[in-house]
Amino acid sequence: MTVVNGYEQSDNEKKLDILNLPALEDEAKKIIPTGGYGYIFGGSEDDWTLKQNTLAFEHAQIVPKALSDIEKPDLSTNVFGIDLKTPVMMAPTAAQGLAHAQGEDDTARGVAAVGGLMAQSTYSSTSIADTAAAGNGAPQFFQLYMSKDWSFNESLLDEAKKAGVKAIILTVDATVDGYREQDIINNFQFPIPMANLTKFSEGDGKGKGIADIYASAAQKIGPDDVRRIAEYTDLPVIVKGVQSPEDAMRAIGAGAAGIYVSNHGGRQLNGGPASFDVLESIAKAVNHQVPIIFDSGVRRGSHVFKALAAGADLVAFGRPVIYGLALGGAQGVQSVFEHIDHELEIIMQLAGTKTIEDVKHAPLLHIHYND
Amino acid sequence: MTVVNGYEQSDNEKKLDILNLPALEDEAKKIIPTGGYGYIFGGSEDDWTLKQNTLAFEHAQIVPKALSDIEKPDLSTNVFGIDLKTPVMMAPTAAQGLAHAQGEDDTARGVAAVGGLMAQSTYSSTSIADTAAAGNGAPQFFQLYMSKDWSFNESLLDEAKKAGVKAIILTVDATVDGYREQDIINNFQFPIPMANLTKFSEGDGKGKGIADIYASAAQKIGPDDVRRIAEYTDLPVIVKGVQSPEDAMRAIGAGAAGIYVSNHGGRQLNGGPASFDVLESIAKAVNHQVPIIFDSGVRRGSHVFKALAAGADLVAFGRPVIYGLALGGAQGVQSVFEHIDHELEIIMQLAGTKTIEDVKHAPLLHIHYND
Amino acid sequence: MTVVNGYEQSDNEKKLDILNLPALEDEAKKIIPTGGYGYIFGGSEDDWTLKQNTLAFEHAQIVPKALSDIEKPDLSTNVFGIDLKTPVMMAPTAAQGLAHAQGEDDTARGVAAVGGLMAQSTYSSTSIADTAAAGNGAPQFFQLYMSKDWSFNESLLDEAKKAGVKAIILTVDATVDGYREQDIINNFQFPIPMANLTKFSEGDGKGKGIADIYASAAQKIGPDDVRRIAEYTDLPVIVKGVQSPEDAMRAIGAGAAGIYVSNHGGRQLNGGPASFDVLESIAKAVNHQVPIIFDSGVRRGSHVFKALAAGADLVAFGRPVIYGLALGGAQGVQSVFEHIDHELEIIMQLAGTKTIEDVKHAPLLHIHYND
Amino acid sequence: MTVVNGYEQSDNEKKLDILNLPALEDEAKKIIPTGGYGYIFGGSEDDWTLKQNTLAFEHAQIVPKALSDIEKPDLSTNVFGIDLKTPVMMAPTAAQGLAHAQGEDDTARGVAAVGGLMAQSTYSSTSIADTAAAGNGAPQFFQLYMSKDWSFNESLLDEAKKAGVKAIILTVDATVDGYREQDIINNFQFPIPMANLTKFSEGDGKGKGIADIYASAAQKIGPDDVRRIAEYTDLPVIVKGVQSPEDAMRAIGAGAAGIYVSNHGGRQLNGGPASFDVLESIAKAVNHQVPIIFDSGVRRGSHVFKALAAGADLVAFGRPVIYGLALGGAQGVQSVFEHIDHELEIIMQLAGTKTIEDVKHAPLLHIHYND
Repeated sequence: MTVVNGYEQSDNEKKLDILNLPALEDEAKKIIPTGGYGYIFGGSEDDWTLKQNTLAFEHAQIVPKALSDIEKPDLSTNVFGIDLKTPVMMAPTAAQGLAHAQGEDDTARGVAAVGGLMAQSTYSSTSIADTAAAGNGAPQFFQLYMSKDWSFNESLLDEAKKAGVKAIILTVDATVDGYREQDIINNFQFPIPMANLTKFSEGDGKGKGIADIYASAAQKIGPDDVRRIAEYTDLPVIVKGVQSPEDAMRAIGAGAAGIYVSNHGGRQLNGGPASFDVLESIAKAVNHQVPIIFDSGVRRGSHVFKALAAGADLVAFGRPVIYGLALGGAQGVQSVFEHIDHELEIIMQLAGTKTIEDVKHAPLLHIHYND
Repeated sequence: MTVVNGYEQSDNEKKLDILNLPALEDEAKKIIPTGGYGYIFGGSEDDWTLKQNTLAFEHAQIVPKALSDIEKPDLSTNVFGIDLKTPVMMAPTAAQGLAHAQGEDDTARGVAAVGGLMAQSTYSSTSIADTAAAGNGAPQFFQLYMSKDWSFNESLLDEAKKAGVKAIILTVDATVDGYREQDIINNFQFPIPMANLTKFSEGDGKGKGIADIYASAAQKIGPDDVRRIAEYTDLPVIVKGVQSPEDAMRAIGAGAAGIYVSNHGGRQLNGGPASFDVLESIAKAVNHQVPIIFDSGVRRGSHVFKALAAGADLVAFGRPVIYGLALGGAQGVQSVFEHIDHELEIIMQLAGTKTIEDVKHAPLLHIHYND
Repeated sequence: MTVVNGYEQSDNEKKLDILNLPALEDEAKKIIPTGGYGYIFGGSEDDWTLKQNTLAFEHAQIVPKALSDIEKPDLSTNVFGIDLKTPVMMAPTAAQGLAHAQGEDDTARGVAAVGGLMAQSTYSSTSIADTAAAGNGAPQFFQLYMSKDWSFNESLLDEAKKAGVKAIILTVDATVDGYREQDIINNFQFPIPMANLTKFSEGDGKGKGIADIYASAAQKIGPDDVRRIAEYTDLPVIVKGVQSPEDAMRAIGAGAAGIYVSNHGGRQLNGGPASFDVLESIAKAVNHQVPIIFDSGVRRGSHVFKALAAGADLVAFGRPVIYGLALGGAQGVQSVFEHIDHELEIIMQLAGTKTIEDVKHAPLLHIHYND
Repeated sequence: MTVVNGYEQSDNEKKLDILNLPALEDEAKKIIPTGGYGYIFGGSEDDWTLKQNTLAFEHAQIVPKALSDIEKPDLSTNVFGIDLKTPVMMAPTAAQGLAHAQGEDDTARGVAAVGGLMAQSTYSSTSIADTAAAGNGAPQFFQLYMSKDWSFNESLLDEAKKAGVKAIILTVDATVDGYREQDIINNFQFPIPMANLTKFSEGDGKGKGIADIYASAAQKIGPDDVRRIAEYTDLPVIVKGVQSPEDAMRAIGAGAAGIYVSNHGGRQLNGGPASFDVLESIAKAVNHQVPIIFDSGVRRGSHVFKALAAGADLVAFGRPVIYGLALGGAQGVQSVFEHIDHELEIIMQLAGTKTIEDVKHAPLLHIHYND
């Protein structure tokens, strides 16, 4: 264990024996300090949207398909021109030092080991360059929380581009922090510095609450910002935090190269729909003009299948990976991806889908169940 | 603590550290005597409508909106020609002396401090004039429980007009008291006099049950009563207790200057719909002919947003304010309003709505969730 | 207490202080012996239909109506040419000696005291003549479980007619006994004789299980039986146990003078719909050709209101009356009726309905709630 | 008790006193060793589909029918040209030695005693010939898990045909094993040999996990396999594991003589619909071209009725029979069938259906209930 500013970071490095990802949460809770755990797992207000995010996958059902003459499903895919061994990617997730001393570096190692895609967060505990190096050539994206200070944005984008990231994910759904009760209950202050913030005039994020951090971020974000970032970086810009066809069209109109359907894991607007429940209408509007990434609530291989069948090209998740990181470092992250891939592979076989492209064309039922 | 007729009234005066309003109820329960608390929080019969009032907000979902180029949402609004700093108003609520020794006077002070709107109840523990004075020039409405004795109604209206109230709220959904089991269980009698009833021939309300109080009230109320009160006072008359488009149209036809959609917080007709579930159809029928006030079940900023988006111009609540009153007097009331405004402001930012007018035009989804 | 064949019968005679009827069940459970209580409250199989019977009232909501200019609602009605002071009647219910030493005689006294309508069961603990006499001139119906032995049927009908009953209720939904698990768990045998069965060759019902009792009853019942009974008695025949428009039409075609919508309180076909959920479609088909009686699940004044608004002319209930009988004899029965009438009167006032005829024309909403 | 490889097998032989089949599960849990019990009752992933399989029967309601002039319902039927005394058959279920020392032989005896239909599983603890002999001339089917080794398939089919089975059930929904968490939790290995696997080159199944067993099975199954088996055996081939009209049509196009609607009791694709919820659409598509067998979730007589009314010609179940086998051997199996037949007979009488053909034409309602 590593103790930083009185905060006990895990330094586990081991493969995990995973029954399922929900069970992993209970294990992780035992080793992540209360404040950090509350920050990671909590949603906003009474967690209604957070809870529905996962329950909403029950709103669609996979149609088993037999006599399909298929075997050995293939999980590889190509999105944004990048070859991936799995359609499941690491969502950009802040402050992974709360879970593990190696933070995002270990996450990058674990994701690379499974041939997946890693997204770094602006609020990473580690620096862009270090985490890119830890990924050892595996594809990475960089997520930007836009600062009010445009020169700071440019310095981050410069560093990301230099580190070789393939795309910029611009988060647009966090122009103010959601009302996160766990952080209030725990009076949570970040004990671990955020490496990228050392260039901020205001400091490095250590000892600040989430509201302080957001205070430096831009509240006012619009289509022009998408254009400006795309022009500045000449990298594809993916707009993250889309929950309606209207927003997707506005983003594409502003030059977005990808749409990231997410409600920030239920951490922002509580009382909005489950992210999965709006995916189909957005995918219909986007109509394959650009790829769609989906996150919020994904815990099972069947969830990944349903999201792909409902219109996603990539499916991201964050919390379960962080739990794996806490429990096993880079190998723990790898175990989490291997587990969800294993569940997905079984579902693909039983649904008669040999490729991710097949999954994207698989039918879903919408029978109403009570729980 | 102040003890009146053996009843222990809080005399707290302090700002409150509020996590959320549902949590406030638990705190308030500890300091309000059982009978008073039962009277305040209880509904009718088995509380089904009471419970659905709050759950019904889950029947609509807010659409997060990004790339909206907005920041610093503005909660101010103008309704009935009155400038308000918040669209959240204090519902007319009886017998606040049950919660605090200063009763409605402290509520009026707290509401004034946030630039909100206060509605006095006929059954106030304090007098119209005193509470108006406590409000110190802030806008107030007066709610009338019509008496069988018309001269008594006139004397109340006279006093209200003299005190400068901006409108009369005529409650029409309480022509008999709902079957309130908490009051029966507690054999509840009002221990605190109701100041406005000292002019009743029957007494001041002290030591009477709710059924006794209502016995003096008119059971027979119709459109002519709306007209009569409007003519007598020459003030806008808002009809409170509307739950159907038909009633709204009947009220407007009788000269109502406003419609107050409410089911009396689930205290009257149990087995009727949640108040929020009928709001949209009423707003459609009213079609902006007069402003709409909404109450029943509001506990979150997201509820306020949803009610405004569904057609309300003002959103009222009562119980949470009473809990704040018990816990902190005028400052407690102020804390409650500041808290719900804070939640609302976050939602407004995340829904891309800069003004209350924007909120009124925001879309709502109606996805069915199981809980 | 009266002990018969080792079975302890209540002999309470007192007014009851009733909070609500569901709470009465808990009280009654304490004084009715286990076997008897299980027989009374239990349904069939896993009680799904029994449970839905009451929950289904949440499938419709009453529309509060204000500005209606009404007061003092009038619960009196006239059905089958009989003047009644309440639209709530006593359902035919077997073996009331299980609950009280005076059995149906006390029930008849209590019902008469409120100006209501009493239905005697074939399987009464008391005789037709005695119970009719106890009713002291108040209106009564006689319910027939048709025997395979037609001469027995005739003797019962003769006795009923002689006793002055106004109509015959022919139960058609019990051609075999439902699978009642409570009776199996308790290995229940009737400890109290059934007075009307003393004329059976097989005995008086004492010491028999429910299956034995039914074994003497006719399994094969058809339209011709309705005709035969109507012709034999020259009394109106009401067909009880109707759950579909088709059955209602078949009954009317066979000369039924009334339709009794009931699923036997969830004691027969488990897995069928809640009785309330089929009422509207049946009422539409019947289209006022004959009156409709409704039962199954009624526990609240709001339930009575909803059933009348959905098409019933009379609303019956059984179990709550039996509980009142156990706890207070004739006065207990009276208290139960007075209580539900009190709840109904409040609902009528708040729904702006002055008469039972108004209630029958009141609108219902059908918003879907989760619980 | 018989102990094999340290595994304690029941050797009970007695009639059972059954209250209902869900209650039987609790009893069986006490005597079946943990690993075996987990294998039998468990589903895949979080058991969502498993749970919905039974709850889904609440999605349809039986219409009680009175005045039907019927009595003594007749449960006999003829399907695939076979006369049966009950429409409830034994589903093919693996490794019944986990529940009882006599395994499938006792099951066959019990099924024969009620005049039902027995389906043997490829993975039986007993041999095809022995179990056929135990059935003593009663009709049996043989279920095939297709091996990658076609000569092995032929040897099994030869043996089955020699043993006189009337049809081959080809399971097509298990081309990979579902993600069964109970088996992982228990680290379950089969302690009892599977008699038919002794011809496998890989061994007899003893000491292997479910994944090992499946590894020998064919993953790639298509329409040609149906044709090949039908041609090879000249027996009717029933395709088991159909959950969509498309699969049913594909199977019939390939020569299937019957469609077996099943989701493998929730043991395979979790996140798919409840089996009952897809039955009607499949039956509509099949349109009586071939008979339909249904299983997954059946626990009550009312479930059997609903499945028949929704389009099934035969209704199968497995787990409850295995529990009866554990508790009472052949007589226990007989008791289970007698019990569900008893429940079914009551439902048939109360629904006014005299024959299984009547049941197949009975209407179902589809009212939405919350639980």
